[in-house]
Amino acid sequence: MEKYFSIGETAKINNVSIQALRLYDKMGLLKPAYVDPHTNYRYYTINQFMYLDLIKYSKQIGAPLKELKKILDSKDVIKLLSFIKSQQKIVDKEVIRLKNISTAIGHIEDKIKYGTEYKETNEIYFRQIEKRFIIEIALNKKDEESDFQIKLRSMDKIIEENEIMFEGESGYFICLDLFLNEGKISYESVYSTLCVENNNKEIDIKEILGGNFICIAYFDSEREMAMDKLLKYIKENNIHPLGIGVETQLFNTIEQGENSDLLYELQILI
Amino acid sequence: MEKYFSIGETAKINNVSIQALRLYDKMGLLKPAYVDPHTNYRYYTINQFMYLDLIKYSKQIGAPLKELKKILDSKDVIKLLSFIKSQQKIVDKEVIRLKNISTAIGHIEDKIKYGTEYKETNEIYFRQIEKRFIIEIALNKKDEESDFQIKLRSMDKIIEENEIMFEGESGYFICLDLFLNEGKISYESVYSTLCVENNNKEIDIKEILGGNFICIAYFDSEREMAMDKLLKYIKENNIHPLGIGVETQLFNTIEQGENSDLLYELQILI
Repeated sequence: MEKYFSIGETAKINNVSIQALRLYDKMGLLKPAYVDPHTNYRYYTINQFMYLDLIKYSKQIGAPLKELKKILDSKDVIKLLSFIKSQQKIVDKEVIRLKNISTAIGHIEDKIKYGTEYKETNEIYFRQIEKRFIIEIALNKKDEESDFQIKLRSMDKIIEENEIMFEGESGYFICLDLFLNEGKISYESVYSTLCVENNNKEIDIKEILGGNFICIAYFDSEREMAMDKLLKYIKENNIHPLGIGVETQLFNTIEQGENSDLLYELQILI
Repeated sequence: MEKYFSIGETAKINNVSIQALRLYDKMGLLKPAYVDPHTNYRYYTINQFMYLDLIKYSKQIGAPLKELKKILDSKDVIKLLSFIKSQQKIVDKEVIRLKNISTAIGHIEDKIKYGTEYKETNEIYFRQIEKRFIIEIALNKKDEESDFQIKLRSMDKIIEENEIMFEGESGYFICLDLFLNEGKISYESVYSTLCVENNNKEIDIKEILGGNFICIAYFDSEREMAMDKLLKYIKENNIHPLGIGVETQLFNTIEQGENSDLLYELQILI
């Protein structure tokens, strides 16, 4: 089997540039099987193509070519196998990371779409919302800055260890009893939704139960009026809330700072 | 809803560094909702968290933050949605690319594992091999360099347009008639296997039929002896080959250049 492929043919077959092949030669990563002593032309054999693939893939995933060179130099096939396995693991991990990002971006898209749909403010409506996975931080006026930091740090560690992604929705739990009995809004805790694709993580992630929610949307300035309306509706229609009430921002605008036109939604599970 | 989060809390909740938040402020990407005029401390509101997510994800996938800033500055939600969609497309494409690389790396691993298994050389054995997708280039001694280049270029275009990955196995088709009748090996074409996960590509990728192959492994120097043995076995056992014969290198070593210890396998479909 003494078929030689010119550097041009090798480049074409393997979809790499001639420059790259010259570089791999110079680096000692992939020496041509034969160099014509008269013309100095480089020739490759078919059995070099697999190593070229390996170099290409390593490069494409940002793997250290120097390490690959060391292993190829060592001629140790076992070491090569272990290098290949470790590279595959890195790729698979990156695939998971990117899939999570894609899911998270999709959720942001959904939130913006929902927020920009025409929505009558200060009107009662009902919404089916699926179970949300969340992390929650209690808001306690007696909390010292240091308490907050400790809570946050513990959460941070969970996120990092379990490679969880935030999902783009944040909001406040309100004290439902106080609202139903006295019509007052008191924010108990802040939550952020998480992407938890397979709920088999062995960690303490909380949930907002899914189900039917009675809702009202309102602009910042109309909050009190809307709350009153919702409370009145609940009482007059003899609705029995199931203990969960959250206020979340609807993303109808890119305004970020202090702006009275922000749109909110109060959601009460019934 | 006038809960402000300090820059430290915002950083912790959203798993970004304080430095990053300061940078986003400086870049005009995410201005704090409130800056204390006395202390100059920055405070963020919960409705900023989603935009922070968007910035984070964009950064993690290498999206242009300058473009995101322009869109956030424009306050145009429709533009933002289209930006988000385009970013998600980029991520999804990258996921497919990396999955293909992972598959291809896995195939290389398999090839090396198979090659390094203890294998008796010059002994007949049988192997079930699955259908292989390939590209093929005819080897024709009359072919001018320019013919070769044209063939290669057309292949190259297919690969590029269809985002196909090479799969790591290369070999030669032999002229089976010549081998069976005269015991001579003539290489007809060179092939490279492709990763074609879903075989719904509308292009002309060839296949090596899967099935039962009669095989013999041999070192470079023992090729002729092995070929004779295989031919004799086929005739004596009245085996009827089905028209496909390929010679492929088994990757039992990292030796690349001219080396007489390279291990090959002749595979004939029966």
